[in-house]
Amino acid sequence: MYRSNTCGELRAAHITSEVTLSGWVHKVRDKGFVVWVDLRDRYGITQLVFDQDRTAKELLDNAIALGRETVIQIKGEVIERASKNPNILTGDIEVLVSELQILNESILPPFTIEDKTDGGEDLRMKYRYLDIRRNPVKDNLMFRHKVTMEVRKYLSDNGFIEVETPYLIKSTPEGARDFLVPSRMNEGQFYALPQSPQTFKQLLMVGGMDKYFQIVKCFRDEDLRADRQPEFTQIDCEMAFVEQEDILNAFEGLTKHLLKEVHSIDSGDFPRITYDDAMRLYGNDKPDIRFEMKFGELNTLAQHKGFNVFNSAELVVGIAVPGGASYTRKEIDKLVDWVKRPQVAAKGMVYVKCNEDGTYKSSVDKFYGQEDLAKWAEATNAKSGDLICVLSGNTNETRTQLSALRMELAERLGLRKPNEFAPLWVLDFPLLELDEETGTYHAMHHPFTSPKPGQLELLETNPGDVKANAYDLVLNGNEIGGGSIRIHDKKIQATMFKHLGFTPEEAKAQFGFLMDAFQYGAPPHGGIAFGLDRLVAILGGQETIRDFIAFPKNNSGRDVMIDAPATIDNEQLKELHLKLDL
Amino acid sequence: MYRSNTCGELRAAHITSEVTLSGWVHKVRDKGFVVWVDLRDRYGITQLVFDQDRTAKELLDNAIALGRETVIQIKGEVIERASKNPNILTGDIEVLVSELQILNESILPPFTIEDKTDGGEDLRMKYRYLDIRRNPVKDNLMFRHKVTMEVRKYLSDNGFIEVETPYLIKSTPEGARDFLVPSRMNEGQFYALPQSPQTFKQLLMVGGMDKYFQIVKCFRDEDLRADRQPEFTQIDCEMAFVEQEDILNAFEGLTKHLLKEVHSIDSGDFPRITYDDAMRLYGNDKPDIRFEMKFGELNTLAQHKGFNVFNSAELVVGIAVPGGASYTRKEIDKLVDWVKRPQVAAKGMVYVKCNEDGTYKSSVDKFYGQEDLAKWAEATNAKSGDLICVLSGNTNETRTQLSALRMELAERLGLRKPNEFAPLWVLDFPLLELDEETGTYHAMHHPFTSPKPGQLELLETNPGDVKANAYDLVLNGNEIGGGSIRIHDKKIQATMFKHLGFTPEEAKAQFGFLMDAFQYGAPPHGGIAFGLDRLVAILGGQETIRDFIAFPKNNSGRDVMIDAPATIDNEQLKELHLKLDL
Repeated sequence: MYRSNTCGELRAAHITSEVTLSGWVHKVRDKGFVVWVDLRDRYGITQLVFDQDRTAKELLDNAIALGRETVIQIKGEVIERASKNPNILTGDIEVLVSELQILNESILPPFTIEDKTDGGEDLRMKYRYLDIRRNPVKDNLMFRHKVTMEVRKYLSDNGFIEVETPYLIKSTPEGARDFLVPSRMNEGQFYALPQSPQTFKQLLMVGGMDKYFQIVKCFRDEDLRADRQPEFTQIDCEMAFVEQEDILNAFEGLTKHLLKEVHSIDSGDFPRITYDDAMRLYGNDKPDIRFEMKFGELNTLAQHKGFNVFNSAELVVGIAVPGGASYTRKEIDKLVDWVKRPQVAAKGMVYVKCNEDGTYKSSVDKFYGQEDLAKWAEATNAKSGDLICVLSGNTNETRTQLSALRMELAERLGLRKPNEFAPLWVLDFPLLELDEETGTYHAMHHPFTSPKPGQLELLETNPGDVKANAYDLVLNGNEIGGGSIRIHDKKIQATMFKHLGFTPEEAKAQFGFLMDAFQYGAPPHGGIAFGLDRLVAILGGQETIRDFIAFPKNNSGRDVMIDAPATIDNEQLKELHLKLDL
Repeated sequence: MYRSNTCGELRAAHITSEVTLSGWVHKVRDKGFVVWVDLRDRYGITQLVFDQDRTAKELLDNAIALGRETVIQIKGEVIERASKNPNILTGDIEVLVSELQILNESILPPFTIEDKTDGGEDLRMKYRYLDIRRNPVKDNLMFRHKVTMEVRKYLSDNGFIEVETPYLIKSTPEGARDFLVPSRMNEGQFYALPQSPQTFKQLLMVGGMDKYFQIVKCFRDEDLRADRQPEFTQIDCEMAFVEQEDILNAFEGLTKHLLKEVHSIDSGDFPRITYDDAMRLYGNDKPDIRFEMKFGELNTLAQHKGFNVFNSAELVVGIAVPGGASYTRKEIDKLVDWVKRPQVAAKGMVYVKCNEDGTYKSSVDKFYGQEDLAKWAEATNAKSGDLICVLSGNTNETRTQLSALRMELAERLGLRKPNEFAPLWVLDFPLLELDEETGTYHAMHHPFTSPKPGQLELLETNPGDVKANAYDLVLNGNEIGGGSIRIHDKKIQATMFKHLGFTPEEAKAQFGFLMDAFQYGAPPHGGIAFGLDRLVAILGGQETIRDFIAFPKNNSGRDVMIDAPATIDNEQLKELHLKLDL
């Protein structure tokens, strides 16, 4: 038996007990006559004590010689600490050691195993197994476990069945790229790893499974943007005989359950906003509503007053920055520079200071009087002391630019509080999205999303105007879930494929099994999928998913710890009937 | 709202309620003046009634016209049934329908959606979404969900943390074949899909995670034997600071919990047997101990009595078949034929009838007297009325043959009762296994398994004799779990790789990250992995795993429903820097 207790377990009530502990040497403090060793395991730290009076000389010497991260086992008596440490749960006691055994040595770790480590990102990734010993990473992984357990518990208690769908499926060369898996037994053929279990969960609905969920790995061979992973985890869900309202209720319930279990937060009903309103009021389909700074559209107020920049703009739109009237000229110039950075790419910024005395001072005083500016303030909900920032230009670009400014300012103003949670349903997404490069439409959600009732005909004439029964759940400015009511009619599905540019042959080759299935009594159905990595990160008050993944990959899709991907034997290639083509 | 209740929910207490139901038309019984429709969903069947007196003519006609598997929604009043059906929970009531809406039509399904279907295996697999509508398959999938939820609950309650390990890892061309995944972003390099998360769970132990589990898909590109799948699911577990006994206790606890929750069985402590004893007494390292028929070795009793077949044999061994003395000559001849089939390949079989009157009649009376045979009966624990079957030859082969006979006879005698559960720990497995073809040793469990203390030196001299801290959990004659105490010392791991034929360079290239990790304070650790597919099947009283997998592959590794694997575009191949080499 390696231990009678963990290093996080002993309390005053254990005083006088003989215990056996195992763990890592976290720290050795050698005062000469007395040596303290902090012994660490997953559960906490227990202070060990060795001293001249009570400890055999050899044992004391051995304790002094212990190096950081050595794995030891000790036996000893729990005693009361002379100076208690109220910051840790084991702070009332220490263990007077009578036996010490070294279980495994450690060479010097490449970074310190502390909450604030001296290790950089690259080093931490290469030695991830050491990084995981640090509390912040360990706690994140344990937090992830807690969240997934609660997800499973809630869904299972509500009649959902977790069904495992296959990982070796068929490639559908549409949307993001699939990872492919050559088949040895089927020469020249390939499996694909699923980008999501979408078609399988729909088949489960056709199969009468009624309420399905799965916490499942998904794969996308995309050029990795910051904080994307080639493999990621979804909470994938589907329900039959439901309308949008049923799904919103079910998964609002799940999210409330998580906020309650994880943060003891009782959430009221989640607010809802349409996609169009989200774009109009926040310039963004995943608005962070922890703070205000809603967009005020100023076209009618600001155009045709002689200021040509505004006159020629499709959209003139502003936000009120709380307390911004006190910004110096230099600070405002910096803001203007910020919106003109290539990442944001605004042409410029007009500002209005809403002075405490009720007057206004703007960068366009030549064109607009105090009355005009007062109306702007009203439209942007600006108060005395605020700064109105106004951008203009093409509608979509301007909204994106102002949204970026809104988020940046909120960040600077400390309005994005990590421990505040503001969920929001965004509804009525467009069915299709125009690819501005190719001029063709593709599915905004995916090709299985149903148009709103009565809008099918619009597909022929105004495809961009068709709204879908599609919804996103947004939390603190991040999309944490998205879904839709699906098409369950073979003919409508065929029409949809046609509008997405599939020939009937292509549709049949890729999705024939699904359309076939729809012939045998497919029930109305719909669902949602949550990005678990992000959900957990945001619930954990953070935004970087990498810190919530045990063994993440870097931005080139590499696992630098195991050094994968790697070259393979020619023998293996041959068996797969492949040759390199470099 | 598609329904106020499910089809499994209505009881006598609901009589007079107005309800809305949705589901599939399971059966229509048209008696002319009255029509009954069985409406089915995941939750059950509710009888709908339409009749001349109470139903509008048009509605009655529509009901008569309903085809099987049509998806409908109805509104109506819950009424008491005239003739109740005590076999179903909704048997006291029926719903008098006032409104009927067809939600989706169905063409005629290729097989009947009944517990006993007329569909063959191939058809059922092609239309798996229809097969899943059948109770036996649906119930299996729900049973699987229940088992996995209980596994997670038990392990989580006992301090285990579920950690997701990566699916895109590095190929280790050793043991079974890996599925490979070409990397588009890293030209000429490949990921591999994990055969198990073995090295990652060990790294989690090095990382201090202490108690880990994961229910995880694993992949093996093997030529598929019957009832093997290229992707399968493991309950993968690992613990730090443990000895074998700690692990046996932890997972005996898990298995008891499952038997209790799933079958309300209170299990006593699980029996334990060494590998050597299992081979000696059952000829098998996964003995089914639901029944006796233990092997009795007869060498000392049967050799050197003039019967040359036995004299020249390495092993003479028998089992007592309960009640077998009554077998006719013809029946016994058939048994002899059975053991001589190529699949079993015994050269012949000696038998002894233990007559009710205490005398013996054998096929070798020429060589053995009544006293000899009485000793055989004692050695095989045969009673009056039993038949002793004796095989002889090379030890390993003979044991395998007699084990096959033992299982076959138990099956015929109805001794393998699906609702009886007999768990068994098999301990002290050999560390290495001789590959008789190549004459080299390979790891019986895997290269990370530790030899028993003090046996490391034997590796040099008698590698086949080294025992490992390795154990299997056997249930009803099936290995449901297996594991070991791992090596946690870099030097010992290097020695092990050397004995397994790795050059130091190969060991470093493939497992360098693990051996590096062992330098930084690796704790003693060990674990176990359960095959979930088989565990669930056996707990479900069945042995075919395919019926417990939602979308299984066939023996060629194909998914016949979606028709995967499949050929891919040249464009895709090009992006992966690959060419076919057929």
